[in-house]
Amino acid sequence: MKIIKSTKELQSIRRSISTKVGFVPTMGALHEGHISLIKEAKKQNDIVFVSIFINPKQFSINEDFSSYPIKKEADIKICALAKVDYLFMPEISSIYSQNEVLIKSPNQSYILEGFSRPDHFNGVLQVVLKLFGLIQARNSYFGKKDAQQLFLIQKMVKNFFINTQIIACETLRQNDGLAISSRNTYLLPQEKKEASLISKSLYCASRIISKNEFDVNIIKNEMLNILKNLNVEYIEFVNKNFQKITKVELKNTIILIVVKFKTVRLLDNIWV
Amino acid sequence: MKIIKSTKELQSIRRSISTKVGFVPTMGALHEGHISLIKEAKKQNDIVFVSIFINPKQFSINEDFSSYPIKKEADIKICALAKVDYLFMPEISSIYSQNEVLIKSPNQSYILEGFSRPDHFNGVLQVVLKLFGLIQARNSYFGKKDAQQLFLIQKMVKNFFINTQIIACETLRQNDGLAISSRNTYLLPQEKKEASLISKSLYCASRIISKNEFDVNIIKNEMLNILKNLNVEYIEFVNKNFQKITKVELKNTIILIVVKFKTVRLLDNIWV
Repeated sequence: MKIIKSTKELQSIRRSISTKVGFVPTMGALHEGHISLIKEAKKQNDIVFVSIFINPKQFSINEDFSSYPIKKEADIKICALAKVDYLFMPEISSIYSQNEVLIKSPNQSYILEGFSRPDHFNGVLQVVLKLFGLIQARNSYFGKKDAQQLFLIQKMVKNFFINTQIIACETLRQNDGLAISSRNTYLLPQEKKEASLISKSLYCASRIISKNEFDVNIIKNEMLNILKNLNVEYIEFVNKNFQKITKVELKNTIILIVVKFKTVRLLDNIWV
Repeated sequence: MKIIKSTKELQSIRRSISTKVGFVPTMGALHEGHISLIKEAKKQNDIVFVSIFINPKQFSINEDFSSYPIKKEADIKICALAKVDYLFMPEISSIYSQNEVLIKSPNQSYILEGFSRPDHFNGVLQVVLKLFGLIQARNSYFGKKDAQQLFLIQKMVKNFFINTQIIACETLRQNDGLAISSRNTYLLPQEKKEASLISKSLYCASRIISKNEFDVNIIKNEMLNILKNLNVEYIEFVNKNFQKITKVELKNTIILIVVKFKTVRLLDNIWV
C-alpha cells in the first residue's frame, strides 16, 4: 500500500492507472463499517483508493472538529490489512485554498442533519467534488447510514454528470443492533445499552409497516414508546427524494432518527 | 460530423473514445473567433467536441436571452467545415433539472461583468461544470475575450481538481481591430466605425505602458480621451487574480473595457 500526501503526487499516480478504480472516502477513525466499504470496493475494482481527510468545512463552529477522533497509525494498519492500493491523506492546505468556487447544496440540505447546521452539506459536497476530481473513480462507495449525505452526493453526481458510480452500502451493526460509528466510542457504559434501542425502534417501525400500517404518526408513536427514556432529537419519514411524507410509500421511504447522548448524537435509519 | 442531442447518447459515445479529446463550448452564432478555437482544438487533440447551448442561467431577467442570436443551420455547417467530430446540441431540459446542486462563484464574480449581474458567473460555472462532466476533455478551449469568465473557469478547474486543461485562446479581431463577437451584428452602421476605437484605446494603453508609465489613472485618462464620444461603462485594470490594481504590473495586468451602444454592449481587453 502506498500512502500519498500531496495532490500533485496523487494526480500523477492516477494518470498512470488505466484499470478500474474504486474509491472509499473517509474521515478516518476507521471501523468495521469502513472496512465493509473497502471490501466491496476491492471486489468490484482493480485498484482501490481510500482517502482519510477530516474535512473542516463540514463542521460548524460549535461542533466536534477539534475533538474528532484521529487514529492515524491504526487507520494505516487497517487499510494495509484490507489491501488498499493507495491511501490518500492530504493536508488541509493542499485541499483548500482561499476564496474558492463553492458548492451550494439544494433544499434537501437544510432539513434534518442540515437544519441546525446550514453549511454542513455545502462542506460535504465541496470536499467530495474535489476528491472525485482527484481520484476519478469508476465506483465510489458511501454508507447508507449517512442517508441524507448519500442522497445529496448522488444528486450532485447526477446534476454535474460526474463520471463515477455511487455505490450505496448497507449500514454495519453490532450484535445488539447499534449502527457502527466513529462516534460510538464517546458513549458512556450505561449509554451503550440504551443506544441499542435506536435500531430496535427502527426494526419495530419496519414490522408495523409490514402489517400495512402506513400512517407516519402512528408508527412514530410506537417508536417513541421504545425510546421513551432517551433524548430523541428527531424521527422523520422521507421519500427517496428526501421530501418529508406523512404516509409510508413502500420501497420509497427512509425513516431517519437522531438520539442525543451526553457528549454525542447518534444517527440511524432504515429503508422500507 | 455527428450531431448529438441527448446527454445519454453523449455519455455512451464518450465512453467509447479512449484517445485525446478536445472541447470547445459555445453558445452558437459561431464566428471566426469560435473557428479559431476549433482549429486550435483540432491541432492538439484526436477528437474534437463542440457544444452549442445557450445557457439560460447566465442571463439575468433583463438580458438578451430571448433575443440571443440563434443560427442553428449556419452553425452546423461551420462545424462540419471545421471538421468537428461531435457537435453536442442539447435541450435545456436535458441539462437542467429542478432544485439542483449549485455553484457559488467567488468574490471575483461580483465585480466588472458580475457587478450588475450577480448570478451571471454562477450560471456560467454551473453549465461549464456540467459540460466538463459530460465531455471529459483533455483540453478545453476558451477565448481570452471573456477574460473574467476564463479566470473563473480556471479557478473552478483548480479548486475541484477537474481533469481538463484550460487552453486560453487569443481574441480574434477584424482588420479595424474590433474584437469579433456574436453581438457585433447588432451594431448600427455608424456604431461599427466607432466600435473600432475600443481596441485603439487598448493598443494606446499598451504603448503608454511600454514607455514605463504604470499609473492606472494616467493610462485610463488617455484611453478615455480616445473614447470621448462613446458611452464607456467601465475601464478597469486587474491583476491575473482579478483584483483591481492602481499600478500596472508587467505580465500580470489585464485592462478590461466595456462600451455601451444603442442595443448592445461590447467588451474587450488586453493582457500586458
